[in-house]
Amino acid sequence: MKQPLANVKVLDFTRVLAGPYCTMLLGDMGAEVIKIEKPGIGDDTRSFGPFKNNESGYFMFLNRGKKSIALDLKQPESIGMIKELVKEADVIVENFRPGVMDKLGLDYDSLQTVNPRIIYTSISGFGQYGPYSQRPAYDLVAQAMGGLASITGHPDQQPTRAGASLGDMSAALYAAFGIMVALFHREQTGEGQYIDIAMVDSIFSMLESNVMRYTAEGMIPERIGSRHPISSPFDIYEAQDGYIVIAVANDSLFKRLCAVMKRPELEEDERFHTDAQRTHNEAALKVIIEEWLQGHTVKEAVELINNGGVPSSPILNIDEICENKHTKVREMLVEMDHPIAGKVRIPGNPVKLSKTPPVIDRPSPGLGEHTDEIIEQFKKVRN
Amino acid sequence: MKQPLANVKVLDFTRVLAGPYCTMLLGDMGAEVIKIEKPGIGDDTRSFGPFKNNESGYFMFLNRGKKSIALDLKQPESIGMIKELVKEADVIVENFRPGVMDKLGLDYDSLQTVNPRIIYTSISGFGQYGPYSQRPAYDLVAQAMGGLASITGHPDQQPTRAGASLGDMSAALYAAFGIMVALFHREQTGEGQYIDIAMVDSIFSMLESNVMRYTAEGMIPERIGSRHPISSPFDIYEAQDGYIVIAVANDSLFKRLCAVMKRPELEEDERFHTDAQRTHNEAALKVIIEEWLQGHTVKEAVELINNGGVPSSPILNIDEICENKHTKVREMLVEMDHPIAGKVRIPGNPVKLSKTPPVIDRPSPGLGEHTDEIIEQFKKVRN
Repeated sequence: MKQPLANVKVLDFTRVLAGPYCTMLLGDMGAEVIKIEKPGIGDDTRSFGPFKNNESGYFMFLNRGKKSIALDLKQPESIGMIKELVKEADVIVENFRPGVMDKLGLDYDSLQTVNPRIIYTSISGFGQYGPYSQRPAYDLVAQAMGGLASITGHPDQQPTRAGASLGDMSAALYAAFGIMVALFHREQTGEGQYIDIAMVDSIFSMLESNVMRYTAEGMIPERIGSRHPISSPFDIYEAQDGYIVIAVANDSLFKRLCAVMKRPELEEDERFHTDAQRTHNEAALKVIIEEWLQGHTVKEAVELINNGGVPSSPILNIDEICENKHTKVREMLVEMDHPIAGKVRIPGNPVKLSKTPPVIDRPSPGLGEHTDEIIEQFKKVRN
Repeated sequence: MKQPLANVKVLDFTRVLAGPYCTMLLGDMGAEVIKIEKPGIGDDTRSFGPFKNNESGYFMFLNRGKKSIALDLKQPESIGMIKELVKEADVIVENFRPGVMDKLGLDYDSLQTVNPRIIYTSISGFGQYGPYSQRPAYDLVAQAMGGLASITGHPDQQPTRAGASLGDMSAALYAAFGIMVALFHREQTGEGQYIDIAMVDSIFSMLESNVMRYTAEGMIPERIGSRHPISSPFDIYEAQDGYIVIAVANDSLFKRLCAVMKRPELEEDERFHTDAQRTHNEAALKVIIEEWLQGHTVKEAVELINNGGVPSSPILNIDEICENKHTKVREMLVEMDHPIAGKVRIPGNPVKLSKTPPVIDRPSPGLGEHTDEIIEQFKKVRN
């Protein structure tokens, strides 16, 4: 089977997370991703933990199936070589700070003269224009400046970073979507273009209706822990040996929960009679629910509540989600055979296409592993 | 200018958040999105706050530019009508619980016989297969079962939901990317296909290297607040009138921070000499930094630290990010003119394509506003 992006060649100047995840998504769909790395050092993440046999798990996961060529971008002959590669390429992705590619002579304007069909994608913290565009980017900054940190955490406590680098990951996803839109456009018109993706824009876009609460009603959303803004009990609760989720979104679910807890009188309690009342008296309700949960383990409680027809789930740790049967059946962890690390499980791909599923069957490359191969190919093309 | 998806017709059976956000992304790029809604009620979010002139801001934002037809899917003639629409459609998106579209006779197998080129996308909590596929989905459950809640929050406190519905939003993004890959594949082969996207798979995919820490090293990532796992000081800190981010990722940045705080001796302090030592003694360092910050406002501190060459930022509330000049310049909030709500600002689109930028110029539809228009069109096509 030919993969959907089998004819798409990606020149990948990216390092660390946002860029590499974007090109990984394209690579899983069959694109040939040629990673341009600094000789001797390579992508910074080659030296980031976690490690297996001294190989970076961070790098292995994000760079599976890619090719690596080692090129010193400060050498003029490297730039000449890159321009040769650009002639045959379809997509460029880079995530340097704005201005770096310009200084190298590898900016969009320079490269589109070499290949007007090129789709050139820049991912950065604040984007290529706007008053903050020169500011350095870290995921923590993106979550803080994009508004997410202000609404994550508990009301009487400090703002909180979500525990994964969502600024990078969301930017990678918007970039991958944008590249596909641009490829689709190019199929019809032959025209390439430039794509500018910012981590802060991406986090802001993930805020969903929180933005509208401000622009439509002038309200400033605040931290409410894990609660639902308008329904209760809809939160994380403590059981005997850990935490669970209970999600009651209406009166009939609350009636069922009362039956599960053998507290049918609560339903008639004027503090808890409607969703609005329950939300108003959420703290008192939480005490009652957690008193009941102290008599049950997570496993027992989730089973009792679900059997009573109320949505409830455990809160899985990373090991638990990794070893979960559902994760396995959905191939969300796949085994990769790496020449140095050996067998290692890496995250799969959630885009389950029936006829052209993502393929994860080649390991991440050694630094410069494909330099000779790619130079040879280009010599052949030129002769 | 013709938009890239101008020839793409989307039949949109989705409600609430994940599905509507996915089709919004397609609509912004020019796709004709026909929203099929329940007569009299429509998408549940039509009755969700926030409101402006009694119109839902939630609905207005997610459904801009779409068309609405009101059809009772329990009536056989509606199903016949849908099948007529499917003949002319390119993409179907639905986010019912698995099995609902089958019961309606609108499952992929039935509709691909009507139009084998159709790209049929289902978004659900746990996906269409796997042991949990029948479980109900809420964002809170996706964040809990996908592993994100376990690593969000502070070490001595309970797991925490990130403050926006990231399970829905990430699923929407993976779906939009998958649809574009499938459209690109269809351009080359004529072949349609089925796409199965799960919110829990999507959250798991956003965990980035946290998964590798377990699969490569057997470590179970825990909650570490807003800290960086291997660098310090890299966290959220309290100043006189609020919180700021300081991001020190190496020794030379630490030296600069010491200079800003006028505490050059800290650099030589053996507790803080290397990144590893600083991370080990992070609590003591935080006390010192916050003592210094008590003498400065957020604005002063961020300016001083940035001027000293160390990345630092405020933590913007939703109103602050909305009113920020950078947000305005990057068109991340755009004004929409709605026939009932009047002028209202809604989130823009972060996918900045230079030649075919996203276009947001039509309001969300009234319930069934386009029913007659679409029925007329189809009558014409059939005659």
